[in-house]
Amino acid sequence: MKNFQQQDFTDEKLKEECGVVGIYKNDAMLSKYLYYGLYTLQHRGEESAGIAVSDGARTEYHKGMGLVPEVFNDDILAKMKGNVGIGHVRYSTSGESYVENAQPLVVRYRGGSIALAHNGNLVNGEKIRRSLEDDGVVFQTSIDTEVIVNLLARYSSDGTVESVKRTLDLVKGAYALVIMKENELIGVRDPLGLRPLSLGQFADGGYVLASETCAFDVMDAEFVREVEPGEMIRITKEGLESIQYKKLEKRASCIFEYIYFARPDSVLDGVSVYEARLNAGKILAKEHPVKADMVAPVPDSSIPAALGYAQASGIPYGDALMKNKYIGRTFIQPEQSLREIAVKLKLIPFRENIKGKSIVIIDDSIVRGTTSRRIVHSLKKAGAREVHVRISSPPVVGSCYFGIDTPHRRSLIAATQNVEEIRKTIGADSLGFISIDGLTESIGTHRDRFCLACFDQKYPMDVKEQQKANGDGPEKTFNRLQP
Amino acid sequence: MKNFQQQDFTDEKLKEECGVVGIYKNDAMLSKYLYYGLYTLQHRGEESAGIAVSDGARTEYHKGMGLVPEVFNDDILAKMKGNVGIGHVRYSTSGESYVENAQPLVVRYRGGSIALAHNGNLVNGEKIRRSLEDDGVVFQTSIDTEVIVNLLARYSSDGTVESVKRTLDLVKGAYALVIMKENELIGVRDPLGLRPLSLGQFADGGYVLASETCAFDVMDAEFVREVEPGEMIRITKEGLESIQYKKLEKRASCIFEYIYFARPDSVLDGVSVYEARLNAGKILAKEHPVKADMVAPVPDSSIPAALGYAQASGIPYGDALMKNKYIGRTFIQPEQSLREIAVKLKLIPFRENIKGKSIVIIDDSIVRGTTSRRIVHSLKKAGAREVHVRISSPPVVGSCYFGIDTPHRRSLIAATQNVEEIRKTIGADSLGFISIDGLTESIGTHRDRFCLACFDQKYPMDVKEQQKANGDGPEKTFNRLQP
Amino acid sequence: MKNFQQQDFTDEKLKEECGVVGIYKNDAMLSKYLYYGLYTLQHRGEESAGIAVSDGARTEYHKGMGLVPEVFNDDILAKMKGNVGIGHVRYSTSGESYVENAQPLVVRYRGGSIALAHNGNLVNGEKIRRSLEDDGVVFQTSIDTEVIVNLLARYSSDGTVESVKRTLDLVKGAYALVIMKENELIGVRDPLGLRPLSLGQFADGGYVLASETCAFDVMDAEFVREVEPGEMIRITKEGLESIQYKKLEKRASCIFEYIYFARPDSVLDGVSVYEARLNAGKILAKEHPVKADMVAPVPDSSIPAALGYAQASGIPYGDALMKNKYIGRTFIQPEQSLREIAVKLKLIPFRENIKGKSIVIIDDSIVRGTTSRRIVHSLKKAGAREVHVRISSPPVVGSCYFGIDTPHRRSLIAATQNVEEIRKTIGADSLGFISIDGLTESIGTHRDRFCLACFDQKYPMDVKEQQKANGDGPEKTFNRLQP
Amino acid sequence: MKNFQQQDFTDEKLKEECGVVGIYKNDAMLSKYLYYGLYTLQHRGEESAGIAVSDGARTEYHKGMGLVPEVFNDDILAKMKGNVGIGHVRYSTSGESYVENAQPLVVRYRGGSIALAHNGNLVNGEKIRRSLEDDGVVFQTSIDTEVIVNLLARYSSDGTVESVKRTLDLVKGAYALVIMKENELIGVRDPLGLRPLSLGQFADGGYVLASETCAFDVMDAEFVREVEPGEMIRITKEGLESIQYKKLEKRASCIFEYIYFARPDSVLDGVSVYEARLNAGKILAKEHPVKADMVAPVPDSSIPAALGYAQASGIPYGDALMKNKYIGRTFIQPEQSLREIAVKLKLIPFRENIKGKSIVIIDDSIVRGTTSRRIVHSLKKAGAREVHVRISSPPVVGSCYFGIDTPHRRSLIAATQNVEEIRKTIGADSLGFISIDGLTESIGTHRDRFCLACFDQKYPMDVKEQQKANGDGPEKTFNRLQP
Repeated sequence: MKNFQQQDFTDEKLKEECGVVGIYKNDAMLSKYLYYGLYTLQHRGEESAGIAVSDGARTEYHKGMGLVPEVFNDDILAKMKGNVGIGHVRYSTSGESYVENAQPLVVRYRGGSIALAHNGNLVNGEKIRRSLEDDGVVFQTSIDTEVIVNLLARYSSDGTVESVKRTLDLVKGAYALVIMKENELIGVRDPLGLRPLSLGQFADGGYVLASETCAFDVMDAEFVREVEPGEMIRITKEGLESIQYKKLEKRASCIFEYIYFARPDSVLDGVSVYEARLNAGKILAKEHPVKADMVAPVPDSSIPAALGYAQASGIPYGDALMKNKYIGRTFIQPEQSLREIAVKLKLIPFRENIKGKSIVIIDDSIVRGTTSRRIVHSLKKAGAREVHVRISSPPVVGSCYFGIDTPHRRSLIAATQNVEEIRKTIGADSLGFISIDGLTESIGTHRDRFCLACFDQKYPMDVKEQQKANGDGPEKTFNRLQP
Repeated sequence: MKNFQQQDFTDEKLKEECGVVGIYKNDAMLSKYLYYGLYTLQHRGEESAGIAVSDGARTEYHKGMGLVPEVFNDDILAKMKGNVGIGHVRYSTSGESYVENAQPLVVRYRGGSIALAHNGNLVNGEKIRRSLEDDGVVFQTSIDTEVIVNLLARYSSDGTVESVKRTLDLVKGAYALVIMKENELIGVRDPLGLRPLSLGQFADGGYVLASETCAFDVMDAEFVREVEPGEMIRITKEGLESIQYKKLEKRASCIFEYIYFARPDSVLDGVSVYEARLNAGKILAKEHPVKADMVAPVPDSSIPAALGYAQASGIPYGDALMKNKYIGRTFIQPEQSLREIAVKLKLIPFRENIKGKSIVIIDDSIVRGTTSRRIVHSLKKAGAREVHVRISSPPVVGSCYFGIDTPHRRSLIAATQNVEEIRKTIGADSLGFISIDGLTESIGTHRDRFCLACFDQKYPMDVKEQQKANGDGPEKTFNRLQP
Repeated sequence: MKNFQQQDFTDEKLKEECGVVGIYKNDAMLSKYLYYGLYTLQHRGEESAGIAVSDGARTEYHKGMGLVPEVFNDDILAKMKGNVGIGHVRYSTSGESYVENAQPLVVRYRGGSIALAHNGNLVNGEKIRRSLEDDGVVFQTSIDTEVIVNLLARYSSDGTVESVKRTLDLVKGAYALVIMKENELIGVRDPLGLRPLSLGQFADGGYVLASETCAFDVMDAEFVREVEPGEMIRITKEGLESIQYKKLEKRASCIFEYIYFARPDSVLDGVSVYEARLNAGKILAKEHPVKADMVAPVPDSSIPAALGYAQASGIPYGDALMKNKYIGRTFIQPEQSLREIAVKLKLIPFRENIKGKSIVIIDDSIVRGTTSRRIVHSLKKAGAREVHVRISSPPVVGSCYFGIDTPHRRSLIAATQNVEEIRKTIGADSLGFISIDGLTESIGTHRDRFCLACFDQKYPMDVKEQQKANGDGPEKTFNRLQP
Repeated sequence: MKNFQQQDFTDEKLKEECGVVGIYKNDAMLSKYLYYGLYTLQHRGEESAGIAVSDGARTEYHKGMGLVPEVFNDDILAKMKGNVGIGHVRYSTSGESYVENAQPLVVRYRGGSIALAHNGNLVNGEKIRRSLEDDGVVFQTSIDTEVIVNLLARYSSDGTVESVKRTLDLVKGAYALVIMKENELIGVRDPLGLRPLSLGQFADGGYVLASETCAFDVMDAEFVREVEPGEMIRITKEGLESIQYKKLEKRASCIFEYIYFARPDSVLDGVSVYEARLNAGKILAKEHPVKADMVAPVPDSSIPAALGYAQASGIPYGDALMKNKYIGRTFIQPEQSLREIAVKLKLIPFRENIKGKSIVIIDDSIVRGTTSRRIVHSLKKAGAREVHVRISSPPVVGSCYFGIDTPHRRSLIAATQNVEEIRKTIGADSLGFISIDGLTESIGTHRDRFCLACFDQKYPMDVKEQQKANGDGPEKTFNRLQP
């Protein structure tokens, strides 16, 4: 049963591919902590969820399609006992949406069992896969995680640390990994720091690794620090060990975490996500001022930026659109003749608030432009005199190859139209995007620290092959049908 | 499968008991319109949903437990063809949550079939029920709707209009009814106007009746006017006929529709709900000013009032709490030792936004006080220096007997504690409720127009028996078990 | 989810409409006993199941679509406590297959609550329904049970016994009823004894009523006697009371209970069902002897008759057809081009057993003739030299109006073809039906004791109206859609 | 949802582990043929089902827990198009019952994709697994199939035939394999012929491989011959190629296929399974004659043997026990105090048939003895004067390591008790098992052709390690939880 068919409504949004969590803690509630951690990271992946735990001797895992509370129940969690565990939530592109691809991936290898959860995307995953195939390896899934776990197993005789190092020497791309062996938890972040991973600590002992700090809050763990780019953290009963397996000059954290992916109550690299979004709104107000009667967000994600814009501009903040809280669940698509209903069911214009007003509408990004056009149309139809669109991210012109689900470049409206053309397409009275410098200023960090490839196509590593492949779709030699 | 176990999180909220919709329109899409109408009225009842349609000869209906999109699918709607139809969404108290009580209630009677959907509550329902029982009538459900439909059938030989009149002569209480017979749609509102009902019209012919105007917007129907208290509207192929079956001097519309029940984009009795809430915030700021760093809402329902408060006070508006958008679905309750997690999963404090600040937190009502206490505690723990609570409704001291699910009077915190005591209980630095006059001023209507019984216990009709019964719970002689 | 779509495979079979059970016993296991009783009567109705229990003050019930173990689970039964309870399993014609029609029907009436389970069919149900409608009664279902319960409630001020008597004075037709009130259990059998009902007793106190004695065995109750035609049995804490509310000279028990409906281990009116079927086979051998190599049953129901035929004829008994034990569950219907697969999936010829042999195949009835034709074809294709068909019931020429689901008369092959024509139609080398006298002889009871209307169209009461209506289908003014 | 919890009722039965089918046929109905083939082989595995098809370029597969019609529906089959496909049904021991272990196993390897379905059990599977692990291979399941597919992939550069040969050179044990590559179908049977596999042909072109010939009948394929022990059959567009990859003097077909596993309408190695069972009954009658009033089977599997016994002994055949056709589905387990109900719900004694009689009851095997004891007790309680038990297989004294799920040796009653002791344990008046020679005579084949290890512990290959391991249960390093 598919409960979520949001494609029609979130097609404008880039999608994070995953969230990970790992806990080392001698606690009968271990699996509950993992569950609440995943629940908190749910926004990073609504398609599948999984947890694996180990008590040193026995590894138990469970995973399934659906939201965290749909996949797990009390009985299942009660059976998962251990002192170390990892969890995963996953988005995916539609074609690969089957349970075999759910994570953690748990395998038996020479040394026992290993469980792996991965957020990110390898740029040489297919290449390594083929080379492993030449060596006789078979693959049962289409996820990079299976490639990584094969490498880890191959090098396992070298010991945990060395096998991880050798594996990471080979793989290129974006990854935040949590790895569970019988008696250890390992967390790894790629050398450029593309995907986030943070470390927390429990007051009564034990450690937690998670994609975002909001997962620590819910389990009353204290945030310790970010896992550094190129750092491997290994937690065993001896305690925590840090290995800097690679040290690069540059850093390339994904800036979209601040714009849209991360939960606003998370802190990334020392910066409050909420604060950054508020700042972006303020800077946007300076970069693209306008006279208007009201500043309003596209709910929910753009609320902080809209507040910032209102504060900086002095224009009153108000609500122009209401988000239907029931949308997201399956519902019957209207016939063509009733198509407009679909928009109105999702984002409902506050007719009384809008009538005759000039409105600045703040959104966090424009991808295809479709939703923006619908919103402007809807506001105008509801009586808005003027609609000024302000976007708290720069124009998206490049595809991401590091774990974010972007449409083909040809579908990115900013890749083929300039700002004025986009303005016309969406029907706005004016349109302004924050500048790249404005965006990085909002975070308070130098732009060299970020991967900005989706805005400037300067990829932090070689992605020529990916670019070539893009448009042809992912190669598939087998496919699991879904009922 | 219960998807919604919100009791732990919405226990502070009074619950509307129902939403109704009725359409008379010669349109192959009739059932789709009803579906989208119910979808829009979903907030008025999440427990069960139902639709009945008639093509003049044949009546089809379908109902079930769950949200509108869970109960209906394309196949079911495709089978429901007709030119007249009604729909219903329902809340209920836990003990009576079974499919037999779902509406519309469809019966066969002397004259054919009749379908009825009811929002409200009769104060003499049990009395009529007993008197009908004395006459040999049997009842299969515990809903007032079954009482009404029995009366309608009894008087049916008098013709539709007369039978409705005679029925309404007998019943006392709150009701907005939509009634479907083979070739007619009837809408009725009680003489005091306790429950809302509005009339809309389609540009291409046909009428729609709905609890709220937001249902008109989604189906592109034009709002015509409210159904008047004591008015019966009858729609047939001859057109629309209005019968003022009873005319009272006084009016007693439920003021909680403005405070919490109605969707903010609805217009009730000529007043925008959103506007009224904004005004309430402004008036609250005047009645209970305070020096603070930030005004923040308890999301989502208190956002307009918080904006109003911020505008009137000049204190910046901001976010102090984030609502987890996944809450509302089933999730595993934490053990006692992890109980605090449950609160944090629902309303997440924006630690970075709060730290060291004095915050005015706006909520729309306090019922039991539990949630308010948790919120204040949560904000303080997250670093708030001061927490000032402002409530955009007066203290709730009386139970409702007109269709709103209120806890027993002894559970209403304001029934047993004064404001200062409540303040201490919830741990706030200050606490202010809007006055009754302030509230009615926010709506711009004289207080005589409203039922304010939950605030002043002046019930617009005799409810002595209900008050006596209250505390003993509803009488039940049989009970359907749910799996 | 429909688990059972047997129409394609059991279209040859007449279908019993219901099974009932009632228990009066002070036992914490009461609902379990009812459950196992229904489980044992499952063959009498696979569509819906329900149980209602009362502890004197409170009545609990649960019912649903599906088999007994699909409708009930441990949790539900654990909640159903009481000292009196009734249960029901139901077949139905497809058009009326919705949960509202599931039984027991539980209503609240003047005197408390009443639950009713009914096996049978009234011939004047619609007439009484109309007359009650004229009196203002509304109906929510299309089952006769609702008519009966309305009458019981009307007359309830006369006391239980009198109200039942007055009700039964009005209704005409076939019925075995179990009625539960707060502190009493009533069992009633129609004056002609059309539908079966037996009385059992527990060694440790308490009584049980059930459609068949096999339900007693499973709960270790001792069979006491049949409920007599026209007898009402009332069980209260004072004990058991028998009221002969009507005494007719003639009796008209349904003979098809012996032929097909009843479970072979049941005893009806003092006669073992298994024994009767064995005898029928023996008599059939005498009435329609043939020279052949093997006697084989159409499994499972015809096994005893085939054994009897083999014993009487001296022809060896063997298996020619195997029944696929998985059939009965949903499965994907083959395309037209693969249609023959459907037959082979159900009744599999034992090729090795058949090859070159002359076979006597025993079946319990021929209704439409379709299955017989398929079986003969299948056996011949598998190599049978000759196929002689013998039927342990006489030709079915008349529809049943007393609770058995028969096809329209025009679909009954024996209503339009004589034996020789049928033989040709089904492709058999010879065909013989047992005679009516042979059949009654097999039971060892005089033919006057039975309703034989399906064989001779001599109905034991006036069914002219039913015959007129037949062909037009049941009147319906409303319809509940199923997902 | 588990529909089948038969453990309580079939604990006496050994369980076949799997059924396989493979089809090479250019037919739009290919997946339907596979479906009906699996439906026919359902008795060989009720736990999971799966199908994989290939059109030369693209491989699609679907598998799931449950019966064939529960796993597949029309939509899924419609999406599976190709000219070659394989299918699998599976039993399993409870601990390993998760979807990952369902087959076919589909992997991507150097040369494309490969799908494998396996019936049987390797005796050196764990050893090869460890040696592959030493080589860096990881395993995601606990089935031997994954070991085999890894070997096939390793040797794939040698070409299909050679890679299969090299793989089979390594593996030891029992196996019937169907292997699908993009354009070929391979069928393999182990050198001893432990597991059955037959070849069929379609009149309009194309081949089918299946565990039993009954699968051919349903799809109108003609039986060609058995796949020989040690033979590999490869079907491509060039046609069928046979490679005798190993030729042993001895043969060791599993004799339990004749006794219980195979469907009675199948033909194994030229012998009708039904006929063999009938013969076994006749021989049993000679080996263990007794004077009695009736011979009766334990339904359904022992019917042919009982008929044979009756024919040979001259004692009339009759029914003493009825099998509840609804058993097999989930049902609520009775409390200890009602435990006897569970037996009576399953096997119902025909009281009237039994009373005062001396009965010979025929069963196909005794494993633990529990069911036999219950049956004897049940018959005696129902009035049987004497109960003589005759078993159409010799005493089971050894565990199987070749794909049959046997309990630990210590649970086999015949491993610890002699016949007289067993007789006392089960409470029979006499007890007789067929001799090994009698059993092989019933099949008409010399005893050297069979694996009789479960009767004489003479295993056809070295199983010392298995015997050592037995009792400790299967090694597991990880475990997937089931909800």
